[in-house]
Amino acid sequence: MYRAPIKDIAHSLKVAGLAEALEEKRFGDLSADLVDAILDEAAKFAGERIAPLAESGDKHGATLENGNVTTAPGWTGLYRDWAAGGWNALTGDEAYGGQGLPTMLSVAVSEMWNGGSLAFALAPMLTMGAVEALEKHASDELKKLYLPKLISGEWTGTMNLTEPQAGSDLGALKARATRNGDGTYSLFGQKIFITYGEHDMTDNIVHLVLARLPDAPAGTKGISLFLVPKFLVNADGSPGKRNDVFCAGIEHKLGIHASPTCTMIYGDGTSGEGARGWLVGEENRGLACMFTMMNNARLLVGMQGVAVAEAAYQKALAFARERRQGRAPGSKPGDAMSPIIEHPDIQRTLLTMKGLTQGARAIAYACAHALDMARVSENDEARHWTDRASLLTPVAKAFATDIGVDVASLGIQVHGGMGFIEETGAARLLRDARIAPIYEGTNGIQAIDLVQRKLPLGNGEPVKTYIAELRAIVEETAASNRAGLGDTATCLAFAIADLEEATLYLQEALADGRQAEALCGATPYLRLFGLAAGGAYLAKGALTEEDAGRDALCRFYAENLLRETNALKHRVIGGADSLLAAGAALRDS
Amino acid sequence: MYRAPIKDIAHSLKVAGLAEALEEKRFGDLSADLVDAILDEAAKFAGERIAPLAESGDKHGATLENGNVTTAPGWTGLYRDWAAGGWNALTGDEAYGGQGLPTMLSVAVSEMWNGGSLAFALAPMLTMGAVEALEKHASDELKKLYLPKLISGEWTGTMNLTEPQAGSDLGALKARATRNGDGTYSLFGQKIFITYGEHDMTDNIVHLVLARLPDAPAGTKGISLFLVPKFLVNADGSPGKRNDVFCAGIEHKLGIHASPTCTMIYGDGTSGEGARGWLVGEENRGLACMFTMMNNARLLVGMQGVAVAEAAYQKALAFARERRQGRAPGSKPGDAMSPIIEHPDIQRTLLTMKGLTQGARAIAYACAHALDMARVSENDEARHWTDRASLLTPVAKAFATDIGVDVASLGIQVHGGMGFIEETGAARLLRDARIAPIYEGTNGIQAIDLVQRKLPLGNGEPVKTYIAELRAIVEETAASNRAGLGDTATCLAFAIADLEEATLYLQEALADGRQAEALCGATPYLRLFGLAAGGAYLAKGALTEEDAGRDALCRFYAENLLRETNALKHRVIGGADSLLAAGAALRDS
Repeated sequence: MYRAPIKDIAHSLKVAGLAEALEEKRFGDLSADLVDAILDEAAKFAGERIAPLAESGDKHGATLENGNVTTAPGWTGLYRDWAAGGWNALTGDEAYGGQGLPTMLSVAVSEMWNGGSLAFALAPMLTMGAVEALEKHASDELKKLYLPKLISGEWTGTMNLTEPQAGSDLGALKARATRNGDGTYSLFGQKIFITYGEHDMTDNIVHLVLARLPDAPAGTKGISLFLVPKFLVNADGSPGKRNDVFCAGIEHKLGIHASPTCTMIYGDGTSGEGARGWLVGEENRGLACMFTMMNNARLLVGMQGVAVAEAAYQKALAFARERRQGRAPGSKPGDAMSPIIEHPDIQRTLLTMKGLTQGARAIAYACAHALDMARVSENDEARHWTDRASLLTPVAKAFATDIGVDVASLGIQVHGGMGFIEETGAARLLRDARIAPIYEGTNGIQAIDLVQRKLPLGNGEPVKTYIAELRAIVEETAASNRAGLGDTATCLAFAIADLEEATLYLQEALADGRQAEALCGATPYLRLFGLAAGGAYLAKGALTEEDAGRDALCRFYAENLLRETNALKHRVIGGADSLLAAGAALRDS
Repeated sequence: MYRAPIKDIAHSLKVAGLAEALEEKRFGDLSADLVDAILDEAAKFAGERIAPLAESGDKHGATLENGNVTTAPGWTGLYRDWAAGGWNALTGDEAYGGQGLPTMLSVAVSEMWNGGSLAFALAPMLTMGAVEALEKHASDELKKLYLPKLISGEWTGTMNLTEPQAGSDLGALKARATRNGDGTYSLFGQKIFITYGEHDMTDNIVHLVLARLPDAPAGTKGISLFLVPKFLVNADGSPGKRNDVFCAGIEHKLGIHASPTCTMIYGDGTSGEGARGWLVGEENRGLACMFTMMNNARLLVGMQGVAVAEAAYQKALAFARERRQGRAPGSKPGDAMSPIIEHPDIQRTLLTMKGLTQGARAIAYACAHALDMARVSENDEARHWTDRASLLTPVAKAFATDIGVDVASLGIQVHGGMGFIEETGAARLLRDARIAPIYEGTNGIQAIDLVQRKLPLGNGEPVKTYIAELRAIVEETAASNRAGLGDTATCLAFAIADLEEATLYLQEALADGRQAEALCGATPYLRLFGLAAGGAYLAKGALTEEDAGRDALCRFYAENLLRETNALKHRVIGGADSLLAAGAALRDS
């Protein structure tokens, strides 16, 4: 059973800069003690309340009848207790009942909820996105009416972007909105893949919906964002009349079964009046508002990758300590069978799982730190941290969710035949993990975002500064001369050099207008970035807190996992020609 | 819907040496025309009969009631028509009704059955293993009674190895057999994970069971192999009295749902007489007999990896041609959305899928070729081919099934959100694919087998000869000067050099008694072996049949995928120290 890895999380927060920020009072009077207390309590809730329901939630899933979705047994009580514990309000605006705590903390507890169950943690994740979009873009009236309930978790929020013909390409969406003349709008259309679009955990659900006004320009510049509640809200904040938005179907998915993935129909009721909605932000500027939600959501989806990897690692480790098969090297004749953790091949698997998990966690927390610092800084400093967060967000999302799948799959392998049996639970983790590289922008889209938008950011300075910081870690590592770190400094230096070379190549290709060539390298580049940054953070972590286990893991990561960066660099800088030639042949075949 | 890739299969058979062997009349009067006809017919059956039932088979699965297993709707008819078509008899001994065709052919059609449905193809796969074990080790009496029905497919066969405490380590098994004094034995015990251990497709099921005699030595040298039929067989070959072997449960699995995975209880009936069994081979020599089955089965499981990868590739390719999102590089303003196959990142994904599939297929067919050549050769030539098959079997099994999982996962990714929806079918392929790296010896066990048993084989000559052959392909490729192959020769030369260096290192480590160190490198070594060999075969294929598409794919493989070999080599020759240090820290933590 999953137990939140408080020690590793606290360590990663420290390495990312939380301790320093607290000492400098960047987050007001938030103390290290309070942080520890929050982490402890969250760990308890995740381990004792969420994790025990993960399997049954998966087995039962959510069911739809007459437009009503019933969640898995125990799910509503779990959610209500969780919200009653104040967990939803952690980051929200204090003016509306939130605690205004740093993103680092919300990301850390989000890791725990997801470690307990991805399917559960999705509901608050979407609510958090809605809260953030409303805080930044909604009118005071809307804020007053909706934020208190959303921040407390009394209601949940959803994001309605995708339509059958509009997935990665939001410009293609067709849902439409008409003006009612009284400041409200009427919405019509179908949205798919709406997470927790309908459920029985709360009295109301607040949908944020992208749609086009009749006179909107084509493409992404003609999209507006609307708030559409399931129940219209009376002036006193109580839910009123049922709105014309209904769940028409829920998906039969590979994983995250307990999370209803809904097809939502807006304005298909008999009235013909459409679903009543309110504009968020300006007309035709909806995409910018939605990106507010998505950027945060991307980091949180990255945390799903970290969390599911952690859960898979814990499960595999426990199994490897228990299960005895064969005799490990060094066994004497007549010895009993060895716990499989004694076999080098199993050790390689477990260490790979743990190394990738820790590396991805460090990147995600560094991204959260940048978001926090941007919020509490001004001018150049704010710009620096905003750029840092922009740079790291696609890496945090894609690298962490890719390794989430890899690690969950390795976790099955450690279990041997038992891994394939659903009751073991390892298979569920792979099934759950598999969605994360897809939603909130596929990892291919993240890689393109990294290369096409983030590398050219600020004339390429932010990435240059970042790589210089990684290089400084290499130097500190080399200077430490710590025996337990073996060849870490050397291996890491090569990896950072690979990252730099690939970065310069891509920046040049983009500057020269060789767009296709740059795009060819996007996915290997993102992985190279993630591997190298993860390795640097592991080294920084080893230098931050002396611990033989951390040294050993860091060294394994450097001397084994980082070897991949060279291949990735070659794919970036030497892989495009053959890709484009073979791609054209494939397309035309 | 899956369509057997006849062109690629015929090409791979040719590259592996089938055409040459046919010309040299190594397989009697088997003609190329007959081979083509068989492939065509098999492709038809796989595409028109098996594939259409794959989804419903997955959905319904198999059910157990009162010890009886009911397979999915349509499954019994499918199996009977398949057997009636003579497909089960392809390779069996002609003296018992088989057609005695080469393994290459049976492996090729097996790829097709598995491409249609892994869950279906498993039944004949196990029967084939039983046939082979009986042909090689059973008494004439047993052969006469059982082989005709097993070869025709009228009955199916099973392999009963695993027990709860004995998975990879068969030495730990506890099932026991007692002598009845009349030449028969009584079996008692529980076996788990028995594929098609019970079902409704045939009138009888023939279990091959590993068990211990009362006076057997401990460990693997005290295991005997028994034939235990579900129904005792009368002298005229008709099924008689029900034997005391029953299915006590079927597993709830991640994938291959239509294939019942059974817990079998031997001798738990009220009579106390046990299940009646007959010895196959000599007492206490059962493991050797079982390995006859397992080696063949390992290659066939490798084919499952190839087949599921092919199916995933076909599905993703079709989707990528249809689905339009965004605008690919080179689009003009105002252009409609591009089919996603136009996007470089999708092209990279599809080419990676196709390249790995073709590489794994080539290795598997080369292994089948070696098995065939060993059968039709004598003395040194036979030894050469036997060693070649021994060397390639773990690579064919593990590399192909690893890439099967990788490719199936990439296939989901190409589909975006639709990939996570079960109805799309891409998710099923990943669920099905995930078992193949586990059963018939986990891929970790295959890697250990490759390093510990296969590299030292014949004083290391077989692997040396093999690498020299790969190097000859490099030279031919370089000499061809074919523009479409780009830097294939250079990249391939580096990869083969990496393979050679890693091989020499491991052989030396083993010779020096540095066993743990060698075992640390087993898994990366196997992948290095597979990648390099696959690349060499792609180059050989390009030289064998001129085709711009093959050239382009080969070049992509060489200039992109082969880059990984360098990292793998470093893991083998420089990864052990950090692994052992971190492994010890992990174990003791």
